[in-house]
Amino acid sequence: MTPDAITRIHRSFEAQSMMATLGAEITEVAEGHVRITAPLLPGSLQQQGFGHAGLTFSIGDSAAGYAALTMLPLDCEVVTAEIKINLLAPAQGDLLIATGRVVKPGKRLCVVTSQVHAITNGDQKLIAVLQGTMVPVPLSGS
Amino acid sequence: MTPDAITRIHRSFEAQSMMATLGAEITEVAEGHVRITAPLLPGSLQQQGFGHAGLTFSIGDSAAGYAALTMLPLDCEVVTAEIKINLLAPAQGDLLIATGRVVKPGKRLCVVTSQVHAITNGDQKLIAVLQGTMVPVPLSGS
Amino acid sequence: MTPDAITRIHRSFEAQSMMATLGAEITEVAEGHVRITAPLLPGSLQQQGFGHAGLTFSIGDSAAGYAALTMLPLDCEVVTAEIKINLLAPAQGDLLIATGRVVKPGKRLCVVTSQVHAITNGDQKLIAVLQGTMVPVPLSGS
Amino acid sequence: MTPDAITRIHRSFEAQSMMATLGAEITEVAEGHVRITAPLLPGSLQQQGFGHAGLTFSIGDSAAGYAALTMLPLDCEVVTAEIKINLLAPAQGDLLIATGRVVKPGKRLCVVTSQVHAITNGDQKLIAVLQGTMVPVPLSGS
Repeated sequence: MTPDAITRIHRSFEAQSMMATLGAEITEVAEGHVRITAPLLPGSLQQQGFGHAGLTFSIGDSAAGYAALTMLPLDCEVVTAEIKINLLAPAQGDLLIATGRVVKPGKRLCVVTSQVHAITNGDQKLIAVLQGTMVPVPLSGS
Repeated sequence: MTPDAITRIHRSFEAQSMMATLGAEITEVAEGHVRITAPLLPGSLQQQGFGHAGLTFSIGDSAAGYAALTMLPLDCEVVTAEIKINLLAPAQGDLLIATGRVVKPGKRLCVVTSQVHAITNGDQKLIAVLQGTMVPVPLSGS
Repeated sequence: MTPDAITRIHRSFEAQSMMATLGAEITEVAEGHVRITAPLLPGSLQQQGFGHAGLTFSIGDSAAGYAALTMLPLDCEVVTAEIKINLLAPAQGDLLIATGRVVKPGKRLCVVTSQVHAITNGDQKLIAVLQGTMVPVPLSGS
Repeated sequence: MTPDAITRIHRSFEAQSMMATLGAEITEVAEGHVRITAPLLPGSLQQQGFGHAGLTFSIGDSAAGYAALTMLPLDCEVVTAEIKINLLAPAQGDLLIATGRVVKPGKRLCVVTSQVHAITNGDQKLIAVLQGTMVPVPLSGS
């Protein structure tokens, strides 16, 4: 990826106020592959004290969306058309890591997948898998 | 529904810190039918300034989960096994309203659906539909 | 719908050899709403003697796809981009009926839903719900 | 896997008349991993002459279900609770191959995935990915 293409991903991520609210950071950007991490903030929990499904979904969806964006021209954004999440285990531990990957790139539709792991004392456990479709749209303002 | 059953739903909702973070409120609880509303807070947005998919998902998933819980014994909680969201239009306007409904109740699995509307000057627009599976689990501490 | 638009749906359905293999018939065509029925043929079963998930899926998917097609210009076909099925009860009885509906029409993407009922001695039972995305494509040969 | 466990999978597969109708064969059985192949029979097509989504779904779903069954006791069957398919390319070529895998085994719920490839002159192309949930049930008659 060119520096411009990497910068574009980081700028878009920083413009997502939801990611800041969740304390999420984008920690890896490569072609067709993006990683986002988030802590289990006191304000991101469900009724049993585990991370809310909405937290796991938010970083899984964003990682998948940005993975799609790495394979698109610089004047594009992507939006999620649809995505499905299977939750495998409670979101607990020190940190969540979402890894998004492109299954099939495309100019009209891009099929993506995402895995979310929970990290506890260095051990990682798969807690969710996502499969969805991203749609390229013209960059706002371009 | 008995007053205890309704109270149980409100208590569980209040225990979800994620709902407070998103400014969400539970505004209707009936058997097999729950409504949750949320504003488009400055901290809940995506890169184009619309509501983040994670916001729409969070309230849609929670409304569906609580709809399932209205049809279960008082010593149960539910967790999301899987859920899929199709996003139909940008999340913009004054308020989002998620309406969860039970398609098929069950002691092992409960199939649910949810619709999310955006309200602008009193007009409502369907912006997302969700379909998923909730799993009853024993209430924490019971 | 114009007679041409209705004829177009029937012609496309008749060109699907899979529908003939499953004994399926298209029994209702209206704007945004299509119904397909199928018997539980001896060759359409799973290992317990109920209708195979593939039968339920095939008619549910086709009903949803044709529901989308009723809202598109005559020089279009649709293909399924993605669809999810929740199976609620065994496929048993005299007949299956799939009812496809359009949730949101669109020139790029069309979001659809489908319900499949099993009919036994005139009683109907909901056995599956589907939610998916259809994509308009130019008619082959046009 | 024990010979009994492998025989059990083959017996269940042979009891699925839908698989015979589609000309499908089970060609690999290992723990958490099952492969099913099917030709593009003249009776399995959609309106453009490609394989019907119902064919791709049927073998993808069955491969995923049997992958789950390889990890369950001998007195169990599995049924599909829900499954989602993203279709990536037309089903055309000499043969389809579905490869089912277990993402997370479980006694209540088993999360599975499946990939379907089309083979043409020895080249393989990914045409569909599935993600779903299988539910163990007692073996009929046991």
